[in-house]
Amino acid sequence: MRSVIIKIQIPYGQHVAFGPGKADLLDAIRRHGSISAAAKSMDMSYKRAWELVYVMNSSFKQPVVVTLVGGSHGGGATLTEFGSQVLSMYREIVAKSEQFVASETDAFLSMLGPIIKSDLST
Amino acid sequence: MRSVIIKIQIPYGQHVAFGPGKADLLDAIRRHGSISAAAKSMDMSYKRAWELVYVMNSSFKQPVVVTLVGGSHGGGATLTEFGSQVLSMYREIVAKSEQFVASETDAFLSMLGPIIKSDLST
Repeated sequence: MRSVIIKIQIPYGQHVAFGPGKADLLDAIRRHGSISAAAKSMDMSYKRAWELVYVMNSSFKQPVVVTLVGGSHGGGATLTEFGSQVLSMYREIVAKSEQFVASETDAFLSMLGPIIKSDLST
Repeated sequence: MRSVIIKIQIPYGQHVAFGPGKADLLDAIRRHGSISAAAKSMDMSYKRAWELVYVMNSSFKQPVVVTLVGGSHGGGATLTEFGSQVLSMYREIVAKSEQFVASETDAFLSMLGPIIKSDLST
């Protein structure tokens, strides 16, 4: 288990252009080749997944996801080169930040007690 | 508006010993002098606030909040010296981490488009 969990969100106007959920959605789209299959794999509604893609595509200078029409797979969706770059840059920022935060939390973590109960009963 | 939002959680067993919500609750208890008034100010149920205090008090080596019995105010709750230290140390870690993350996100933010619509309509 990690000793610190860090979540980074990038606001854009009234919205969040990018964050942990959108990063996971891009990963799932890359893996599954469609927005609906990606949504299903994340237990997310298709509508919600489509909205997240819409917000990302409207926030960045270029689209991060494109939908494919026809072909042997009958449509589907894929990350653009740009979207792939957005995702890997975000993952890199999170990883570096986790390292930084971990290096800052030693004194804080030393204030925690030993875990003697498997459950705190709440 | 900040260009990056960062949330730091400290896991402890199956629970989260500390995070943004618990930090805000400690601030509110300090300000209002009771768990119920603090909960009310945060639009949180008394039960929920009490549970969060319970998790914190069970996770750290010493209690972070103590309840006061009787007196002219008829009870109430206050941060311990230790709880105050936990809170300020957490706030410091978050502030330093925000600075670090902000310094890492320039290239990422440059991939965002100009905000031309006040609402992305989702």
